[in-house]
Amino acid sequence: MFITLPDGARKELEDGSTVADVAASIGTGLAKAALGGIVNGKAVDASFPVSDGDEVSIVTDKSEGALELLRHSTAHVMAAALVDLYGDVKFGVGPAIENGFYYDVQLDRTLSSDDFAAIEARMAEIVAAGTPFERKEVTQAEALELFADQPFKVELINELPSDQVITTYGIGSFSDLCRGPHVPDTSKVAAFKLTKIAGAYWRGDAEREQLQRIYGTAFFKQRDLDTYLANLEEAEKRDHRKLGRDLDFYMMSDMAGVGLPLYLPNGARVIRTLQEWLRKELYRRGYEEVITPHIYKSDVWKTSGHYDFYHDNMYFFNINEGTDEQPRFSEYGVKPMNCPGHVMLFGNSIHSYKDLPVRFFEFGTVYRHEMSGAVHGLMRARGFTQDDAHVFCREDQVVDEVVEILDLADAIMGEFGFEYEAEISTRPEKSIGSDAMWEHAESSLKKACEVRGLKYELNEGDGAFYGPKIDIKVKDAIGRMWQCSTVQVDFNLPERFDISYRTADNGEARPFMLHRALFGSIERFLGILIEHYAGALPLWLSPVQVVVLPIADRHKEAADELAKRLQRAGGRVEVYGQNEPMRVKIAKAQAGKVPYMVVLGDKEIETGTVSVRERFEGDLGTWDVSKLEELLNDAQV
Amino acid sequence: MFITLPDGARKELEDGSTVADVAASIGTGLAKAALGGIVNGKAVDASFPVSDGDEVSIVTDKSEGALELLRHSTAHVMAAALVDLYGDVKFGVGPAIENGFYYDVQLDRTLSSDDFAAIEARMAEIVAAGTPFERKEVTQAEALELFADQPFKVELINELPSDQVITTYGIGSFSDLCRGPHVPDTSKVAAFKLTKIAGAYWRGDAEREQLQRIYGTAFFKQRDLDTYLANLEEAEKRDHRKLGRDLDFYMMSDMAGVGLPLYLPNGARVIRTLQEWLRKELYRRGYEEVITPHIYKSDVWKTSGHYDFYHDNMYFFNINEGTDEQPRFSEYGVKPMNCPGHVMLFGNSIHSYKDLPVRFFEFGTVYRHEMSGAVHGLMRARGFTQDDAHVFCREDQVVDEVVEILDLADAIMGEFGFEYEAEISTRPEKSIGSDAMWEHAESSLKKACEVRGLKYELNEGDGAFYGPKIDIKVKDAIGRMWQCSTVQVDFNLPERFDISYRTADNGEARPFMLHRALFGSIERFLGILIEHYAGALPLWLSPVQVVVLPIADRHKEAADELAKRLQRAGGRVEVYGQNEPMRVKIAKAQAGKVPYMVVLGDKEIETGTVSVRERFEGDLGTWDVSKLEELLNDAQV
Repeated sequence: MFITLPDGARKELEDGSTVADVAASIGTGLAKAALGGIVNGKAVDASFPVSDGDEVSIVTDKSEGALELLRHSTAHVMAAALVDLYGDVKFGVGPAIENGFYYDVQLDRTLSSDDFAAIEARMAEIVAAGTPFERKEVTQAEALELFADQPFKVELINELPSDQVITTYGIGSFSDLCRGPHVPDTSKVAAFKLTKIAGAYWRGDAEREQLQRIYGTAFFKQRDLDTYLANLEEAEKRDHRKLGRDLDFYMMSDMAGVGLPLYLPNGARVIRTLQEWLRKELYRRGYEEVITPHIYKSDVWKTSGHYDFYHDNMYFFNINEGTDEQPRFSEYGVKPMNCPGHVMLFGNSIHSYKDLPVRFFEFGTVYRHEMSGAVHGLMRARGFTQDDAHVFCREDQVVDEVVEILDLADAIMGEFGFEYEAEISTRPEKSIGSDAMWEHAESSLKKACEVRGLKYELNEGDGAFYGPKIDIKVKDAIGRMWQCSTVQVDFNLPERFDISYRTADNGEARPFMLHRALFGSIERFLGILIEHYAGALPLWLSPVQVVVLPIADRHKEAADELAKRLQRAGGRVEVYGQNEPMRVKIAKAQAGKVPYMVVLGDKEIETGTVSVRERFEGDLGTWDVSKLEELLNDAQV
Repeated sequence: MFITLPDGARKELEDGSTVADVAASIGTGLAKAALGGIVNGKAVDASFPVSDGDEVSIVTDKSEGALELLRHSTAHVMAAALVDLYGDVKFGVGPAIENGFYYDVQLDRTLSSDDFAAIEARMAEIVAAGTPFERKEVTQAEALELFADQPFKVELINELPSDQVITTYGIGSFSDLCRGPHVPDTSKVAAFKLTKIAGAYWRGDAEREQLQRIYGTAFFKQRDLDTYLANLEEAEKRDHRKLGRDLDFYMMSDMAGVGLPLYLPNGARVIRTLQEWLRKELYRRGYEEVITPHIYKSDVWKTSGHYDFYHDNMYFFNINEGTDEQPRFSEYGVKPMNCPGHVMLFGNSIHSYKDLPVRFFEFGTVYRHEMSGAVHGLMRARGFTQDDAHVFCREDQVVDEVVEILDLADAIMGEFGFEYEAEISTRPEKSIGSDAMWEHAESSLKKACEVRGLKYELNEGDGAFYGPKIDIKVKDAIGRMWQCSTVQVDFNLPERFDISYRTADNGEARPFMLHRALFGSIERFLGILIEHYAGALPLWLSPVQVVVLPIADRHKEAADELAKRLQRAGGRVEVYGQNEPMRVKIAKAQAGKVPYMVVLGDKEIETGTVSVRERFEGDLGTWDVSKLEELLNDAQV
């Protein structure tokens, strides 16, 4: 029989050959590396028998999906270890997930991370044994008998069609109901680690049994596992929710509600500084600020289309427009986006082709419904402020405007040392607008990237129904990617709100509309910055830039005066005037990630100098006060 | 018989004497001036017969309520004139109102202001005749017969108790159902003017007849009427709704909803400039900015008491905190006030007595329900932004803090040349808090006014149930008073949110809480400023500070360069580069209330100068550009 390889080559094999045989027929290296195969597009075990005419590719640790395969097999190894250690364990489901795997189990004892060492030790023994994963096909009746003491598996089996062939995978004495595939044997599970335990309801239903969910991860190389765990630890240290609390940036409150942060003075200062910095940049670039309400009558949302297409993400309520005696209710909605307001503002006056482009920006706070379980600190909240702008321009201005926006995005990302990647999403199947419009818009976005020398990936068919877009993802200090900026062409709103401009020949034309947000959500961007800088924001963004530390009580007056002087230079300055040892004060300032600590004693006051400490570099020696003034003055936005 | 005069003097009179006789018995001057009287606290006609033991005072044009009396009588004069002119007129009601009177009438023809001259001429004849107002008492049956051809009056008569004595007032052939009192005769109606016509439903019910409402006003002296009409005209010219539209400050939209202004770039610039100016001032004064959400779970509003006491002014909606399958709804409300957020922020950390006062400020946009009919441009909207702050302090700090707030209010009002008045409102009948707390708070407010040398009026019993307050009213350029700033002590929220600070002896104490807003609503304050300055805002607040006017096409490049140079100096600058005659450009800049117009031609470019025009002073001659730069730099907030 003949099979076809990914490069198109045909290969002759003996009848009854398996995927492993295909690998061996290519080379001994590949035979050793083979974890499984893809036969006619379907993932299979290495032991899978191939047939004449099959298209076959070999899965190795380099293949797409290989980590998922490994992690699923590692979940089985963990399950086998649990049975070996604890005997009567009832199993729920045990899938591979992003960055690892879990298994939901029910057993008499409550497990904790203290048990991980024992479980991992038993897993290591199973791995060392190199036991093969044995696949079996059984009928439903046989499966029910096999798993008679596994009530959750029985529930799953009973939900399958009665005539379905059911597969089980066994390693040694442990066997599991499983579709597979798996790695050939347990020796392939080279580097693994259990990470945490959480409670989980069977089938996610709070009315059903609560199980223990054991999380773990696995890699092909110990080095990769070590890197992953180090990054995980680093990410935990940088978690903006922890730092946000420690640095007094914001608070959450059960009473206030889900996903609604309240900003303490430190957080508010950073947000206002980010806004002020961007505002100046935007005015310089010909944008004009506008301010629009947070609520509109549903007429607006019906006109914009949000009422039909975004209803479930919005909050609506009724207002009595009449009197108490003769009520007349109108429905209003809290804004999830700022666009309709900006379109109405554009439509408020007559625009000549000579006045375009019109660029409106707003720091607009919007509210969008997120499931309680999905909210996550500042990264995913129900209320957040977009650095939102809309550009209304002529067809011949689109490329230039997008180039300008990309230039601004570059200036912003550069300021924080972010590398970034671009993606262009093109026309999806369901969409409005003519072919000519889409072609013009897509080629304008591509052209703009080319003008800026910005490489982009294409997400074919991934655009919004109303136009294509560019997404920009930034890479933070520990290598994680964050979606921030978006430039989006919109064919929809200009049409729906019927806005136009006067052309050179006194006719009317529909303007092109570009949405764009560069920070995205300012609060989320703050969250990213906190994690990127591990809380130590750059001097110009730090809520407190300098703390003045008087050595003794008699230096406090001079400390207050110095603080005032530095404040006049534009600095955000605090005095630590409490009677505490200097090392306590310095530790407090370090914990607060304050860029500069200046110590003031007799000597400094006499000479008009200060002893300066920097949060990373430590002691910087004695400075003239004017040097500090200059530094703070330069750091003003 | 004897009556008593207001000064306590007793006077002997003949039986059957009237109020007019009382006046005559005092002097001939008073006899002539008497318009009516107050007998035992009740307003009566001059012809009212007094009795033994009555307390009697004479109403003259100086008395409180005299204008109302005059205007009510003028409404009758107008009604008589309408009958004389148009014959069959059906009358609704015709009361005196603030600044004038109206009468609702039904007649075949539709009146317009074109008819005013004829009506006023006939009124003047009636006035010249000096016809007495004749009062008659009739039974209900007689009244129904008298007003048989007046269906609206019949409806009113039928609603009175059948045994009630009904009064009518006649002047000549015209008689009206009326409780009175009136001036003695029509000659007292000296200075009057009809002002406008509007439609009005009978009894304010849209299901009933639509009548024509004729408005007018009247004064005792022509000079007062002239002043009033001039002020009215001036106020109309200054109407912020008209100027707000003409100067592109904001727009309203039926689609967007009632009382929800959208701010165009000019309006947004002024609002942001006001905020930035105040923000700097607040940081200087030890305030810290915070940012809180626009929506909270109702738990917050229940804790704060708004849920019970402010419910009808709030907008509530439900959020699903569960999943689609297992929904679990929580009620949320849009914030009408920022206080609860600030209290929660204070409560987020432990405060030592040494850290107080804590001063939080926020430019917080709030939404409060207003009846559709009550909204009025920026002055009364459903959404607006407070310059809101809350001071948390110790008992011994209250006076100093209030003094500081009054000092800031003075700085703000002084900046705009506003004179202002203060009122202190004290404990109402229904209130919370101990006597000691109220006494301390009220005396602190008074003390603070005294320290600042600020005179105040006392509104006894007019405080909120949760504490006393100081209100500050400003007087604008045409003499109108506007309530802006409020300083309010709050005993309620610290209790309800159970906030505390650590005392010197390591105990816990409840902080004092002061609410204060100085602009009040920033948008409303903008409205007041627009009317105060008739749109010509001071240089530092003007959305466009300078327009550059190139004389010919060849000067446009230099104009753009000059604009950039002035922008670098901090100016908000536009170039009028269109091919229009210079006088058109200047007229446009004048209409836009732009402070400086600078003309640029060959001569100016050659010498590095500009020809400067100021919006009020006109031509200022030739300036070095640096002088303009300096001016703009100084005008930065």
